[in-house]
Amino acid sequence: MNDFIFHNPTKVYFGDQLGALTSELEQYGKNVLLVYGGGSIKKSGLYDTVTGMLSESGFKTSELSGVEPNPRHTTCNKGAEICRNEKIDVILAVGGGSTIDCSKGVAAAAADGRDIWEIIKEGKTVEKALPIVVILTNAATGSEMDMWAVISNIETNEKESLGGMGIQPRAAFENPVYTYSLPEYQTACGAFDIFNHVIDNYYLAGDATFDMILNFQENVMKTVVKFTPVAMKEPENYEARANLMWASSMALNTVLDAGMVHDPACHMMEHEVSAYYDITHGHGLAIITPRWLTYILDESTAPAIYRLGQKVFDVQDGMSAMDGARKSIDALSQFCFETLGLKSTFTELGIGREHLEDMAKHSCHGGVLRGIKTLTPDDVQKIYEMCM
Amino acid sequence: MNDFIFHNPTKVYFGDQLGALTSELEQYGKNVLLVYGGGSIKKSGLYDTVTGMLSESGFKTSELSGVEPNPRHTTCNKGAEICRNEKIDVILAVGGGSTIDCSKGVAAAAADGRDIWEIIKEGKTVEKALPIVVILTNAATGSEMDMWAVISNIETNEKESLGGMGIQPRAAFENPVYTYSLPEYQTACGAFDIFNHVIDNYYLAGDATFDMILNFQENVMKTVVKFTPVAMKEPENYEARANLMWASSMALNTVLDAGMVHDPACHMMEHEVSAYYDITHGHGLAIITPRWLTYILDESTAPAIYRLGQKVFDVQDGMSAMDGARKSIDALSQFCFETLGLKSTFTELGIGREHLEDMAKHSCHGGVLRGIKTLTPDDVQKIYEMCM
Repeated sequence: MNDFIFHNPTKVYFGDQLGALTSELEQYGKNVLLVYGGGSIKKSGLYDTVTGMLSESGFKTSELSGVEPNPRHTTCNKGAEICRNEKIDVILAVGGGSTIDCSKGVAAAAADGRDIWEIIKEGKTVEKALPIVVILTNAATGSEMDMWAVISNIETNEKESLGGMGIQPRAAFENPVYTYSLPEYQTACGAFDIFNHVIDNYYLAGDATFDMILNFQENVMKTVVKFTPVAMKEPENYEARANLMWASSMALNTVLDAGMVHDPACHMMEHEVSAYYDITHGHGLAIITPRWLTYILDESTAPAIYRLGQKVFDVQDGMSAMDGARKSIDALSQFCFETLGLKSTFTELGIGREHLEDMAKHSCHGGVLRGIKTLTPDDVQKIYEMCM
Repeated sequence: MNDFIFHNPTKVYFGDQLGALTSELEQYGKNVLLVYGGGSIKKSGLYDTVTGMLSESGFKTSELSGVEPNPRHTTCNKGAEICRNEKIDVILAVGGGSTIDCSKGVAAAAADGRDIWEIIKEGKTVEKALPIVVILTNAATGSEMDMWAVISNIETNEKESLGGMGIQPRAAFENPVYTYSLPEYQTACGAFDIFNHVIDNYYLAGDATFDMILNFQENVMKTVVKFTPVAMKEPENYEARANLMWASSMALNTVLDAGMVHDPACHMMEHEVSAYYDITHGHGLAIITPRWLTYILDESTAPAIYRLGQKVFDVQDGMSAMDGARKSIDALSQFCFETLGLKSTFTELGIGREHLEDMAKHSCHGGVLRGIKTLTPDDVQKIYEMCM
């Protein structure tokens, strides 16, 4: 087992507790930047609720709206400019992972003064940023309770990470009711993002040592497998939405990382796909993950892949490790492409072969992808080919 | 499912990371109060390591030693006086739950200026206290990562709680190696304390609604059942000690409370026993818990008790809820009194009937114990009788 640091100071209000919003914001000041996406919060009424609360309590609210599903560095810069001009004290992100990630970019750029892309390219951890408070409307990225953001530069087809305790949200309001209006497709994509965050830290190296955490991981994956179909069929099922929402936070709040080997290969490979083709991240992950598992399947990884299948998909006991692992990958594929109903190939999403080589190179950042199995650009390209 | 707040800002360094100690302390100042118990840290060499590090880095260290297994309010007051006289900036607790709880009392009394018992009796949450950093040497109370302390007043035979974010440790160093020297008996008692913290939040009301959390709870209990016998037999088994240590923190860092009904009946009943007889808390809990479960067993609680047995002790499926629940309580008793080797009655610990009535009244704080089943002083006395 590896040594680890657990530190997650985000204060989460789970359930019907929005009444605490103004006191959370007030700690930082009265000038708020409200960040949101394409307007679904206007349709749901959440926008009116929040702006009503803010104006009643004497906040001065500026707005950054229209955040893209893969948030762009230019939008972060635009937000940072508003922060400087309006002397913003605190950022209120109302939305899912894109809105929160964008807010993190805004918060970092506003405190730093430079273009967010320059800050990202510098690669330093962000210590200073404007404080961020979140109202979550999607169960997916875990960004509500972590210190990471993923920002896209569409001029260069790059999608890069920004990280540091400075951009960890100070508080997050998680009300499962706010996810009732999510369409089936978004529910499915979000769910697979959660699932994949757990796989990123699963013991695929074959030498599991932190038994308790391994069981936690399997629980969270099983939660996703159990409740996503329920939420898709009954979008207003509180129990299903609540389990998925808290699974989203738990998957990435570092409880499940503890002592484990981190290997975000699928995330790295997918970021290139959505950087080039602007697809939904969770869908890209669902296409890539079973192929990646197939590609890295050998005697060292088979026992772990088989165990995942047994624990999460009830794959039967008693098979050889290789056979069991193959059945487990089948079960995962079935979950992605039948239960979640996601299209199973890049081709069906309109992705051709024209950029595969470049994408493979970029995903390795000029070297290789290190993890459970080291992947060269050539390996990544082969995995992309399996996804066509 | 209930609404909940998750907020746990303690920074945990798990494993071999004591190198970060001085930088953690330095944030608060250079005047440290080192708090510890009966000297086992001198035998293990940890005392020399820590004081060596502090003096090398130019800290001025004062000491409060000899903290009792059930820490006394007079010791807290003594520590608070040192804090005032020596202008202490930060408290370093090196030990298990008793030392940490005592440090919390010191921290609160030092900031407040009054006698700690007056503060406790006032019953307010503690917002202001001196900062506390912990080096953990026992897997048991979870005090390293929570906002609670239990302090005893031996003059009045009272044992009371003190709570608030002010006394939540800022950082905790958890190295499983520091628990290698724990005797079998302490390992067993600590383990059952962990186990009982989970039961305190288990869904005994029979209407479980937070599936993911329920599974987490069962994992933590199963971790205790699996690794405690290993740690007792092989005290230097890192894997066993690490699983128990992190189980201790996870059991009380509020991850497992989320959305559940909290019913610390066993803790309330036990606190009176150790207040009157100064026994080891975890041992008292092990004697009480199976009797409490037997006492509250009825058609509404049977399904949950049976599920606990199935999930944690592999009690067989397919029985009626009542039969299954009885088998589950048997399995729990077997774990406490055979696997852990703990004496099974108060009588064997030298506890007579002389104070049972008073203890029962005190445990109800002048009213009743509210929880899954409301317990009157008369109920509590009957449960105590079952423990004789």
